[in-house]
Amino acid sequence: MSLTVYRKSHFNAAHRLYRPDWDDDKNNAVFGKCNNPNFHGHNYELEVGVTGDINQETGFLIDIEELKTIIKVEVEDYLDHKNLNLDIPEFKELNPTMENIAVLIWDKLNASLLGRFKISVTLYETPRNFVVYTGN
Amino acid sequence: MSLTVYRKSHFNAAHRLYRPDWDDDKNNAVFGKCNNPNFHGHNYELEVGVTGDINQETGFLIDIEELKTIIKVEVEDYLDHKNLNLDIPEFKELNPTMENIAVLIWDKLNASLLGRFKISVTLYETPRNFVVYTGN
Amino acid sequence: MSLTVYRKSHFNAAHRLYRPDWDDDKNNAVFGKCNNPNFHGHNYELEVGVTGDINQETGFLIDIEELKTIIKVEVEDYLDHKNLNLDIPEFKELNPTMENIAVLIWDKLNASLLGRFKISVTLYETPRNFVVYTGN
Amino acid sequence: MSLTVYRKSHFNAAHRLYRPDWDDDKNNAVFGKCNNPNFHGHNYELEVGVTGDINQETGFLIDIEELKTIIKVEVEDYLDHKNLNLDIPEFKELNPTMENIAVLIWDKLNASLLGRFKISVTLYETPRNFVVYTGN
Amino acid sequence: MSLTVYRKSHFNAAHRLYRPDWDDDKNNAVFGKCNNPNFHGHNYELEVGVTGDINQETGFLIDIEELKTIIKVEVEDYLDHKNLNLDIPEFKELNPTMENIAVLIWDKLNASLLGRFKISVTLYETPRNFVVYTGN
Amino acid sequence: MSLTVYRKSHFNAAHRLYRPDWDDDKNNAVFGKCNNPNFHGHNYELEVGVTGDINQETGFLIDIEELKTIIKVEVEDYLDHKNLNLDIPEFKELNPTMENIAVLIWDKLNASLLGRFKISVTLYETPRNFVVYTGN
Repeated sequence: MSLTVYRKSHFNAAHRLYRPDWDDDKNNAVFGKCNNPNFHGHNYELEVGVTGDINQETGFLIDIEELKTIIKVEVEDYLDHKNLNLDIPEFKELNPTMENIAVLIWDKLNASLLGRFKISVTLYETPRNFVVYTGN
Repeated sequence: MSLTVYRKSHFNAAHRLYRPDWDDDKNNAVFGKCNNPNFHGHNYELEVGVTGDINQETGFLIDIEELKTIIKVEVEDYLDHKNLNLDIPEFKELNPTMENIAVLIWDKLNASLLGRFKISVTLYETPRNFVVYTGN
Repeated sequence: MSLTVYRKSHFNAAHRLYRPDWDDDKNNAVFGKCNNPNFHGHNYELEVGVTGDINQETGFLIDIEELKTIIKVEVEDYLDHKNLNLDIPEFKELNPTMENIAVLIWDKLNASLLGRFKISVTLYETPRNFVVYTGN
Repeated sequence: MSLTVYRKSHFNAAHRLYRPDWDDDKNNAVFGKCNNPNFHGHNYELEVGVTGDINQETGFLIDIEELKTIIKVEVEDYLDHKNLNLDIPEFKELNPTMENIAVLIWDKLNASLLGRFKISVTLYETPRNFVVYTGN
Repeated sequence: MSLTVYRKSHFNAAHRLYRPDWDDDKNNAVFGKCNNPNFHGHNYELEVGVTGDINQETGFLIDIEELKTIIKVEVEDYLDHKNLNLDIPEFKELNPTMENIAVLIWDKLNASLLGRFKISVTLYETPRNFVVYTGN
Repeated sequence: MSLTVYRKSHFNAAHRLYRPDWDDDKNNAVFGKCNNPNFHGHNYELEVGVTGDINQETGFLIDIEELKTIIKVEVEDYLDHKNLNLDIPEFKELNPTMENIAVLIWDKLNASLLGRFKISVTLYETPRNFVVYTGN
């Protein structure tokens, strides 16, 4: 009997989308106003899903307080109130698009949860744009 | 051509998470403030999904008024404004976690719909914590 | 590495649910107040999902501005502020239920995107009633 | 000690904005796509506020079940699944803009509540457009 | 130059509406299913507004972290995961209606903020029922 | 007969809260993680209210398309995808707190609307923190 438990979280950050090996014209053509050299930012809304079996003793799939703590340590403490391009090592050479941020979050949560659950990451960059990544 | 039609619903209830065969220390360690002996409560938000084929005559997968009535009879009338531990027989010996409530709702809806559709149950215990169960 | 990018959109329209080959009694029995001969209407909320791989050069699965434009051309310009029964050729002989509208939107987006992505369409007819169609 | 209690409600309807004494060009210039002669429609979200004193005996300002019933009778039964221009006498000669609909709802609720409370009406025509009317 | 800064918060609790000096018939007539002797419960959503002037040195009306802490201490720590009737002294003899809960919260916040700001309390008992209290 | 019409809008931006005339310790004590020298960012949600009388000829208080355009020109084009500290002249010497941003938006809208309406500005910096400014 398999269920998925979800926990919502939140962080906000600045970023810029561009490639240093492209000139301004190409960066503007591909990334538009997201290429502002002074950065812009977002409130990112995050939904983390963990799929597994109910523990018959507790009735929990996972203790939601444990999941909340893991998300705080792995995601909020790492990304909240940061400049993704300048403050986060993984984005020194990688564009911090919502797609790449979702993959980074999935990788960090999967490492922390040690493969105990199948994980899904839903990341809203704005109320109208979001991405889902499930690790494969 | 298979689609899924969803109907949202709502009920509120009191509950307490604990095991009578555990002492207070162990119940507090595992269930924290959810172990308040005087109970606490939630507004549960429910999304029921039914998957099947479009009826070519009506253009409906299911008459949403029929689905609304089934959810009212099976879920709202049974759980709304109740104490899950004291008023609901299935939770006399089973912890009313959101996981176990979702399974109970799925079982009741599946029995009522007689296997006509594949069913999914999404249950929000709070705006930040929710669970999805699809019956397998 | 496969992800799904979602874009939300919005349109509003009038419609009526009925079959001209049925008499009033049967139409009222099956479609209830949705059979008002003078029409009623909805704000339709739409979530379009496109599944595919990240473009390693840009970090995008799809340029969300391109997706936004396709949804505008294929869905908003076609359905917004329209009477679905009278103004939309596909619904001259087909009931504009949310199921059939979702299939129409999926077909139009799939033709426009030329099979480059797997598409999902989530269509809210009201805040409590919605449908998901993924093309199979 | 004065408080305001709010109850949310919902109805959906079709309408058209135009003046029969204006020609098509002027109607299109002023009302744009809202002037579609075949009508379009909306899900209207309504928040009714009633301001008054707490009844010391019950702790209620108003029994919310009474308020829910008044809104059902005065607003939902009157406007839901209707064509505002064709089915509602007040809009035979008056444009059913969200402003005019809010005033109509306020007048009907005020008459039904017999001046027992100060009333406010908040009416969403779309998730981004809404109006507030407080009767003066 | 006066503004109002709002902070949203959340707690959940069990309660029962009834008067011990009334018999069952009268309690059921007035309080309906809210009179379940085993209690029911809600997720209460809270919006606290504080009105005052901008501090020209910081650009803050109030440090939102200070407001967040005051709400945590005065409201969340006091009411979250509690049985309002049994665990909260103020409701031993007073019905824990949303109106009375809002007044209690306002009184506690006003005492803690020492009259530095005009305060408003918006309290949602369910997504469709809420109350606003501004202290007069 | 006075009503208020509201239009919601959206922009996202990067900012940093600090005073250049304070040392790092004082900036960190007052502004905390909002003082990240590399900036962070937000999705700002905006609700603009305009209060006035209904135009009896059209049934509009204001043509919402005109209001939408004014908000686009005065707010979105000016603030969206910008670094508030570096790109916006008004914030060269003024902290871009949500309070100060709300006042700037109000001033710009009021100038554009030429005093035709009383204006209110509601600005969400995060889903839990927001400010209201009405110009006095």
